[in-house]
Amino acid sequence: MNPAAIILAAGLGTRMRSPRPKVMHPLAGRPMIRHLLAAAEARFGRIAVVVGPDMPELEAAVAPHDIAVQRERLGTGHAALQAGSLLGGHPGDVAVLYGDNPLVSEATLGRLLAARAQADLVLLAMRPADPGHYGRVITAPDGGVERVVEWADANEAERAVGLCNAGVVCAPSADLFRWLAAVRNDNAKGEYYLTDVVALARAEGRRVAFVEAPEAELRGINSKAELATAEAEVQAALRAAAMAGGTTMQAPETVFLSFDTRLGADVVLEPHVVFGPGVTVEESATIRAFSHLEGCTVKREAIIGPYARLRPGTVVEPRAHVGNFVELKAVTLGEGAKANHLAYLGDASIGAGANIGAGTITCNYDGVHKHRTEIGAGAFIGSDTALVAPVKVGARALVGAGSVITANVPDDALAIARGRQTVFEGRGFKGKKGK
Amino acid sequence: MNPAAIILAAGLGTRMRSPRPKVMHPLAGRPMIRHLLAAAEARFGRIAVVVGPDMPELEAAVAPHDIAVQRERLGTGHAALQAGSLLGGHPGDVAVLYGDNPLVSEATLGRLLAARAQADLVLLAMRPADPGHYGRVITAPDGGVERVVEWADANEAERAVGLCNAGVVCAPSADLFRWLAAVRNDNAKGEYYLTDVVALARAEGRRVAFVEAPEAELRGINSKAELATAEAEVQAALRAAAMAGGTTMQAPETVFLSFDTRLGADVVLEPHVVFGPGVTVEESATIRAFSHLEGCTVKREAIIGPYARLRPGTVVEPRAHVGNFVELKAVTLGEGAKANHLAYLGDASIGAGANIGAGTITCNYDGVHKHRTEIGAGAFIGSDTALVAPVKVGARALVGAGSVITANVPDDALAIARGRQTVFEGRGFKGKKGK
Amino acid sequence: MNPAAIILAAGLGTRMRSPRPKVMHPLAGRPMIRHLLAAAEARFGRIAVVVGPDMPELEAAVAPHDIAVQRERLGTGHAALQAGSLLGGHPGDVAVLYGDNPLVSEATLGRLLAARAQADLVLLAMRPADPGHYGRVITAPDGGVERVVEWADANEAERAVGLCNAGVVCAPSADLFRWLAAVRNDNAKGEYYLTDVVALARAEGRRVAFVEAPEAELRGINSKAELATAEAEVQAALRAAAMAGGTTMQAPETVFLSFDTRLGADVVLEPHVVFGPGVTVEESATIRAFSHLEGCTVKREAIIGPYARLRPGTVVEPRAHVGNFVELKAVTLGEGAKANHLAYLGDASIGAGANIGAGTITCNYDGVHKHRTEIGAGAFIGSDTALVAPVKVGARALVGAGSVITANVPDDALAIARGRQTVFEGRGFKGKKGK
Repeated sequence: MNPAAIILAAGLGTRMRSPRPKVMHPLAGRPMIRHLLAAAEARFGRIAVVVGPDMPELEAAVAPHDIAVQRERLGTGHAALQAGSLLGGHPGDVAVLYGDNPLVSEATLGRLLAARAQADLVLLAMRPADPGHYGRVITAPDGGVERVVEWADANEAERAVGLCNAGVVCAPSADLFRWLAAVRNDNAKGEYYLTDVVALARAEGRRVAFVEAPEAELRGINSKAELATAEAEVQAALRAAAMAGGTTMQAPETVFLSFDTRLGADVVLEPHVVFGPGVTVEESATIRAFSHLEGCTVKREAIIGPYARLRPGTVVEPRAHVGNFVELKAVTLGEGAKANHLAYLGDASIGAGANIGAGTITCNYDGVHKHRTEIGAGAFIGSDTALVAPVKVGARALVGAGSVITANVPDDALAIARGRQTVFEGRGFKGKKGK
Repeated sequence: MNPAAIILAAGLGTRMRSPRPKVMHPLAGRPMIRHLLAAAEARFGRIAVVVGPDMPELEAAVAPHDIAVQRERLGTGHAALQAGSLLGGHPGDVAVLYGDNPLVSEATLGRLLAARAQADLVLLAMRPADPGHYGRVITAPDGGVERVVEWADANEAERAVGLCNAGVVCAPSADLFRWLAAVRNDNAKGEYYLTDVVALARAEGRRVAFVEAPEAELRGINSKAELATAEAEVQAALRAAAMAGGTTMQAPETVFLSFDTRLGADVVLEPHVVFGPGVTVEESATIRAFSHLEGCTVKREAIIGPYARLRPGTVVEPRAHVGNFVELKAVTLGEGAKANHLAYLGDASIGAGANIGAGTITCNYDGVHKHRTEIGAGAFIGSDTALVAPVKVGARALVGAGSVITANVPDDALAIARGRQTVFEGRGFKGKKGK
Repeated sequence: MNPAAIILAAGLGTRMRSPRPKVMHPLAGRPMIRHLLAAAEARFGRIAVVVGPDMPELEAAVAPHDIAVQRERLGTGHAALQAGSLLGGHPGDVAVLYGDNPLVSEATLGRLLAARAQADLVLLAMRPADPGHYGRVITAPDGGVERVVEWADANEAERAVGLCNAGVVCAPSADLFRWLAAVRNDNAKGEYYLTDVVALARAEGRRVAFVEAPEAELRGINSKAELATAEAEVQAALRAAAMAGGTTMQAPETVFLSFDTRLGADVVLEPHVVFGPGVTVEESATIRAFSHLEGCTVKREAIIGPYARLRPGTVVEPRAHVGNFVELKAVTLGEGAKANHLAYLGDASIGAGANIGAGTITCNYDGVHKHRTEIGAGAFIGSDTALVAPVKVGARALVGAGSVITANVPDDALAIARGRQTVFEGRGFKGKKGK
């Protein structure tokens, strides 16, 4: 069988008020098209995405799938037809999906395909809380689809029908493309409508069935407000899954997860935490309030935050601590090591049990290149220290507070690099005039 | 025509449990009275605010409008009458509004005034979800107002009426003040009620009409909980307007806007962002999570945060970056310049393309005066540098990491100001006893 | 009378997916068992908690109350019976409560006890929005309880009953333990059910009554999702109480309070604030956005934040200011003193009116011990200063910016400890190759 899918993604999304292609707007950390592709890849062996002209960002995002370009926007039927050269000869079913319906579930797609056993054409339908101006699905006495009637053409009885057309269709490739080729544009807008394949199939005496799916999966995203609503639904699902897996969240509504956030058993997430893509938090780790994580791994029993920012390439080993106002970028923080207060650590490896004092800064950038800082196990970096990379501080080395370290420090050595203190009696702070 | 308004704002708001006058509590960054004034100023040519005695903060906030002082709190009718010396001779309509109903819209005020064409007295009415103890508006067969009956005096049939009196009235000045003067206080509380003007108008055979408005506009604010509810409504409206204008918000419910926040097309606001008053964000700029902005301008394609704080007087030029744990106060950050990590920059101008290293601090305050720091275009300030103002760092100058810069650095010069490093072998960190 | 309570807390809570005993998961900053104990202590003179084997953390948390250990998990009736050696001879009523029903109010417990005057056995009942599979309470014509029927055994008419059994019972000690000893385990699961005491009481012709309580008080907590729901209810109640007391919150839904947070009159809490246990904020203090407080006292008119973290042992005296990216740990910040920007202050006392510059770090930890920093009244600590503890800076002393202070500074003295500046002409920043 090996079904294939066409994903329509050529829309400009003018109501989004953004130069970015509509389906490239993100949901839970990835473009909406990638949400749909993830569901579609689980059910379809081949996928062709119909994009608009001059959308290189989108073309890159849908790789390695096939791409067809719709050069003129002449309607959904016309858009689907653009995939004809790619899928016209496909030996199996072809479904047409919408890039701006990114929440269609894998389960719904499975039911769509399964329903093809009893019908020549299957469409997805829904019963929205407010059916509004959706096309209505008129069923036959045998439970099949008699026809789809657009709201503008519907009479009062038809408008009273709650079953609405979601636009998704599935049929054998040969049938689908034959019908698509036969769709005409003799309507008010002069567009070719995908939905017209239903009438064409019925005219051939074919059986048309529908599969009902939740409205939340099929609602289109056409504005920034609808994008925010979809995001809220995705976040609610991600949070519920995390809690079902054992994650503790005092205030799940203030925690924002990414599509690929991995949370181990008994992880604690305090309020106000944001996850970018690519984060793994292992069991029994705690992410405290106001933390921001992206592209990093936090291992078991580590404690992060409050106010910690972990940037890509960071690995926090077991039982290590990252405290407030601390930024880690491409850093490995060794087992049980601590960086608890106001620090910037970038491009560094820090050994097990090391203690990084408050105010420590790795000077990793000289304006042209980034350089590495290496700190040995058990080292103690005094507070308010600048480490001018490239530089190595040996194991069990001790760096005096307030130092600017520009040369390597051997294992077990003490390094101090600071000015000498001078005191001038009687020259203290006189305060504000008149105070 | 030139209508005038009286705004009653003398209330102490004892349920607010605050010494501040009730109408001075803020909504979306400005006192509630200023919300109402903004709507009223669009419809009324002259405004008189009735304040209580000893409310200088409120008197300042309502400038340049007229002020009448109600010295004794003898009821709403008495309060309105205090504006008589100011508006008694006003050649047109006078409306009476409430300072603690700050969400009345300009549109509703327009409909109130327009309705005066068909009636001698117009009042605002609403149909609350829970009519509770509001006075009920009893209509005549012709659709006008027959009378307003207080809940305490209403019989069962009258209490079943859903149309409630919102208290706002509008009538020709001469009529209004004549009726106000005739209101009596022979009731349980011994107060003069503004609502009594309805009965006085009807007794003269005058036509009284009502204009219905949404409950959300007319709900009074009498407690901190009601203030929070009103704030939530204002925020929801501000966020919806921002999204309709093209702003992307992953989690609009965690973003707090100010009444005057200006957001350009395709601005991105990540979760957990707070705007104080006076912020402009230009198109395609991104405000990342946990940022706090107030009195500043962020120009196009700039990136702010996460955890950035922009304070008043700050201008971030196009494509500049402000990163985590960075505070800018009265700073101009030049085009494409970067201050990405842990820094305090105050009273400074920073040239285009300059790079401000992690941990940079402008020492702008000597305990008495603030002093300026000037950094030239293309300068590179090494990490963990203190700039003791007043000081100038020239264009393309390079400051070594960990320096304390106390004297000007010429263009194209290198400056270093730090201690020399000394190493003592074998004097490393011995760790905790017994560990 | 002197009633006693048995609290069942032996459950493992496998659905919580955590090694921690279920009742030890926190709500608003304390274990759920301590919420229940707080309500129970107000009504019961003696309390015995039934724990599971090997739960030392729980045993410590319920001190000083009596503890009985249920070694095998054979049902709620069996669990309650384990308290027999402690409360079997109790001269008064004994109630059985559930550790995972932590939101039962003191008022409900009072009504439960009061109802004993009219009945030999009293149980708590509720009318849940979704009665689901709860056991149903079948009432007699006299309003008493006829019997409790489990959902599995209920016929259609019984399942239609909305009154559900919450499991809590109260009876004279001798009766309760006699009935508990008579409970049998001849059921599908082979467990001893506490609810069977109802049938045993009725078989003796005793009168059984019920007290109805809100569902929100009686809903069990069996998963992380249910824990989050309960937390939301507790937070809503805490916020409402705070606002009723005069606290201003722009966005109460983003503020997380602790069970013991004390807020004085007219305190302002901006959005996104988190309180750990043990915080007192006195009247007219302001806690700005993104602040995190724990175990500290903020006195009147002080201003904290945004982005301030106050850790245990901190006292901020009246009118003092703590600004952004500032951490205070075990610090007393004197009246009117200021630490406004990027600082770590630990184990320190700071005199009235002192000014702590941006980037100041107390180096309080040498890897083995913590040491104290003392700063006198009116001192001015220049920006980017490291204070190597133990160290004293005298009253009105002035410390130059960028200093590393390792020795005491007398009153009224100036101390400078930094490198001398050297400038190399023409050796400025060359920028990126090809740029």
